[in-house]
Amino acid sequence: MRTITREQLEDIALGATVLGTGGGGDPYVGKLMAAAAIEAYGPVALISPEELVDDALVIPVGMMGAPTVMVEKLPEGREAMAVVAALEAYLGDTALAVMATEAGGINSTIAFVVAAARGLPLVDADLVGRAFPELQMCTPSLYGTAATPLALADDKANSSVVTAISNLWAEKLARSLTVQMGCWAMVALYPMRGWQVKAQCISGTISTLEKIGKTILGSRDGRGDPVEAVRIVTGGFLMWQGKIVDVSRRTMAGFVRGEVAITGVDEWSGRTLTIGFQNEFLIARSGDDVLVSTPDLITILDAETGEPITTETLRYGFRVVVLAIPGDPRWRSEAGLQVVGPAYFGYDIPFIPVEERLLAAHA
Amino acid sequence: MRTITREQLEDIALGATVLGTGGGGDPYVGKLMAAAAIEAYGPVALISPEELVDDALVIPVGMMGAPTVMVEKLPEGREAMAVVAALEAYLGDTALAVMATEAGGINSTIAFVVAAARGLPLVDADLVGRAFPELQMCTPSLYGTAATPLALADDKANSSVVTAISNLWAEKLARSLTVQMGCWAMVALYPMRGWQVKAQCISGTISTLEKIGKTILGSRDGRGDPVEAVRIVTGGFLMWQGKIVDVSRRTMAGFVRGEVAITGVDEWSGRTLTIGFQNEFLIARSGDDVLVSTPDLITILDAETGEPITTETLRYGFRVVVLAIPGDPRWRSEAGLQVVGPAYFGYDIPFIPVEERLLAAHA
Repeated sequence: MRTITREQLEDIALGATVLGTGGGGDPYVGKLMAAAAIEAYGPVALISPEELVDDALVIPVGMMGAPTVMVEKLPEGREAMAVVAALEAYLGDTALAVMATEAGGINSTIAFVVAAARGLPLVDADLVGRAFPELQMCTPSLYGTAATPLALADDKANSSVVTAISNLWAEKLARSLTVQMGCWAMVALYPMRGWQVKAQCISGTISTLEKIGKTILGSRDGRGDPVEAVRIVTGGFLMWQGKIVDVSRRTMAGFVRGEVAITGVDEWSGRTLTIGFQNEFLIARSGDDVLVSTPDLITILDAETGEPITTETLRYGFRVVVLAIPGDPRWRSEAGLQVVGPAYFGYDIPFIPVEERLLAAHA
Repeated sequence: MRTITREQLEDIALGATVLGTGGGGDPYVGKLMAAAAIEAYGPVALISPEELVDDALVIPVGMMGAPTVMVEKLPEGREAMAVVAALEAYLGDTALAVMATEAGGINSTIAFVVAAARGLPLVDADLVGRAFPELQMCTPSLYGTAATPLALADDKANSSVVTAISNLWAEKLARSLTVQMGCWAMVALYPMRGWQVKAQCISGTISTLEKIGKTILGSRDGRGDPVEAVRIVTGGFLMWQGKIVDVSRRTMAGFVRGEVAITGVDEWSGRTLTIGFQNEFLIARSGDDVLVSTPDLITILDAETGEPITTETLRYGFRVVVLAIPGDPRWRSEAGLQVVGPAYFGYDIPFIPVEERLLAAHA
């Protein structure tokens, strides 16, 4: 157990943008919400999954919907409290700890709001190990754990509890409610016991995010190369460098979908990289060559500051670097690829780990 | 208190088609479900609202969605049981009685299934006094009673509990879930106490339906004029007689919408009547003349048998009679018209009671 204060939140939120791979919502908003809660209620106790007793009820809490809309219609801490309370009421049980839903964007910090306000510990883990757009795309799914009962709450005070026969059905029902609720909603889902968190979730998430963020900040202002720092700390690969020349983006059916085109400089000069996204960056291609695809992570960084760029802040003219980070082995497994592989998102290509693609390209 | 057996169900289901004004789902399916439940568990005790103690929990149960789809994908009694149980679990309380949601179509008989299987009394009342397409269109709404918490369940065993800030929001959220669940879902809503049922619901519904059905059946086979019998027993008016020549119908956003055109015979010869519907018949027009509009009831009967024709059974060539029945005074009030008047459904006309329209036409 250790304590998280406002200072560490800065690092965590910055790290969350790297693993958010363009999605997961604006981490700035999440950081402000968490910081305000810590200011009001005091710091948050961060515990490792191993510190949980096996039957402790853990409730992951975050948001679902289109990040573009969250920027215009800001969430408040109130809804995060309401959605956890709604799920507890339905379960007839009280959470002994809360958890982030994703290692990316706003969903890495929302849970701090509830932890601070309720004086609950936050588990140093998450359900994805990165950000992914749909709610069945969580590692507990691979172990047969149900996403439901789940609770949704909106900014107006509407709420709903969904019980579904599968996690795909849970996604379908929760997504349609999210669209009706104004394109984003707060969500508490995958209620789990301590033993499930230990066995089925991605461990050490908050610590990892903090380390990434701290490394970037520590290498700015002439103290190093922030982009190189991100590459090293994440174990990633430099895939592309260039300038954003085109962005197409539309918010539909509770997601933001689109493509960004980046012309190349240096060794990529004369070519164009196209990255497709559904909330998160999913596939990077240049002509017929696939450079990297889901479930491996694609992150776009500002070439100078190393600041990650989310899908909603992509703009013409940004000079950027594209990094690829190997995905969690669970997502790269056959079962994992069925849930989050290229085919699920409609890309008719096999998944090839980014390391293998790079080795083949340099052979 | 009196007892309802299978024989009386025949009358009730037939009467429900008349007040269903074309919608409310296929009463034949509802009758079969209720008959099977009574066969298995015994007859149902029908009680008047006055027999309820003031704090008795009453749960209305029925279906929502597009009647056209219900015909293809039949509901089972299991879902009606599940949805009442889901709402009871959420409320932490047990129903002392159940109630029909509408005096029309399948929603007049679904509640019999739960009443029979659970041995609960059925209250002789409903939420609408006819059938209307949206869930805020219930008389308790006019008294400020919330439609939520409400529960939805589908044929696959998905379920959801919705808590909304208004009955319009409840409709919006429940409708989107209904669409996802396959265009119809079982619904338990407007949980009420005995005192609310007495003050806010339409009384005597089941008895009225039984009387209408019995009258039609008693006047068939040469024993009378079934159409005239319906007109008299409902206090309705003969508006049109002719042949169906065109039907347009589409299932969209959880409703069936469309129009039916009926050429005239006798005094209506040479003219055409057009009736617009959203699940239920809403407005009948001939050229620029409005003959009758919501909240007054429009019923289309087979000219020979007096059998009411629902929106999903409208067919070219049927020889029909159109009756208008004055709507409940609560729906004709200013507050009622805001919820179910022509303007709500997008018709830019004032509501004029059908009696006044007829007097003006004959002046």
